[in-house]
Amino acid sequence: MASTAAPGTPKVTSVVDLPSSEAKWIKLQKATYIDAQGKSRVWEIASRKTTGSAGVDAVAMGNIIYHPSKPPSTIVVIQFRPPVGGFTVEWPAGLIDADEKPEEAAVRELYEETGYKGTVISTSPPVAADPGMTSANLCLCMVEIRLGDNDPEPEQHLDEGEDIQRVNIPLAELYTRLEEFAKEGYVVAAKLYHWAAGVQYAVEHPELFRKAG
Amino acid sequence: MASTAAPGTPKVTSVVDLPSSEAKWIKLQKATYIDAQGKSRVWEIASRKTTGSAGVDAVAMGNIIYHPSKPPSTIVVIQFRPPVGGFTVEWPAGLIDADEKPEEAAVRELYEETGYKGTVISTSPPVAADPGMTSANLCLCMVEIRLGDNDPEPEQHLDEGEDIQRVNIPLAELYTRLEEFAKEGYVVAAKLYHWAAGVQYAVEHPELFRKAG
Repeated sequence: MASTAAPGTPKVTSVVDLPSSEAKWIKLQKATYIDAQGKSRVWEIASRKTTGSAGVDAVAMGNIIYHPSKPPSTIVVIQFRPPVGGFTVEWPAGLIDADEKPEEAAVRELYEETGYKGTVISTSPPVAADPGMTSANLCLCMVEIRLGDNDPEPEQHLDEGEDIQRVNIPLAELYTRLEEFAKEGYVVAAKLYHWAAGVQYAVEHPELFRKAG
Repeated sequence: MASTAAPGTPKVTSVVDLPSSEAKWIKLQKATYIDAQGKSRVWEIASRKTTGSAGVDAVAMGNIIYHPSKPPSTIVVIQFRPPVGGFTVEWPAGLIDADEKPEEAAVRELYEETGYKGTVISTSPPVAADPGMTSANLCLCMVEIRLGDNDPEPEQHLDEGEDIQRVNIPLAELYTRLEEFAKEGYVVAAKLYHWAAGVQYAVEHPELFRKAG
């Protein structure tokens, strides 16, 4: 089937159980822990095998594109993600290489996935992707991209087998556009959605976030 | 060791490989998929075994607490999370029971974890927790909690073995408080962090989010 399929929409053709010993990227583990009452309990964990020396798996690039004559925008990426069996809408992101700093990975991965050269303006502490289930974590790097009026859209520098579409979205429309993507069948990533939802809440309810005094 | 430990700080005492067949909650799988060029590839996936009929694993409660004489706030929960080996700061959240709607799970879990009775004002589309690694997904329910001036702090209704601390944070301080929690060694959940970071970005850079025209 694989060798005869014509180019087209990706699809998952089979899913089978995988022993951790045969996996390259992730593993399934059982932790035994002592709770606050001194009782021994167990918890099931999915972990990455690739965590580097810094203890941080990944970096996501919350990016802001400034252009002299266009509204401020952000670039999101669309790609087929086998774990969800569909196309996702996410901020550019990637695993941090061994001995790489989050900021270095952010600039490198942004360039590879989008072609843009950005400047990291802030880095979050390591935050937990889904701490009830996995040790996987990431830093959110906010990245500025400053364009000139006549800058052409840059070329991507994708790894072999990567197929990533870029979509530029005005920041003022981000939340609405993510809702629309979801209605069209795309799977929006929780982290990007939460950032956009936070923006939207602050824009619609500014009185809730005013500092006292 | 488990049977003799005194009450105190929880800790993970061992982590061992777990075959999917012996796991109750999650599983490790290998997906074979056809990419856009028609080539067969594989991807490793961690999935929940508990996904209900609606196809959504979990719900997180982005909550806003209104009080007649206190600043608007949100309640976050702190608990020991074995996957990250430490205490996390998250919005209340939980798995959706079979045949339960996200909004029903949101009200139920908020009550169990915090004691508060809330009203769901919006529900996100299902969003992907970490789509490069897992099929796990969730809905973000925004929940309003309206308190009277003399309402006492309610009691939690935790399951056996749950030990969850509640912290009420004024919304205007949320981002700063999450940064402080991280400095103190707590692990902040990515989704809550992204929401707070989105709020902060909109508060600090309102000009970026103004609609044209």
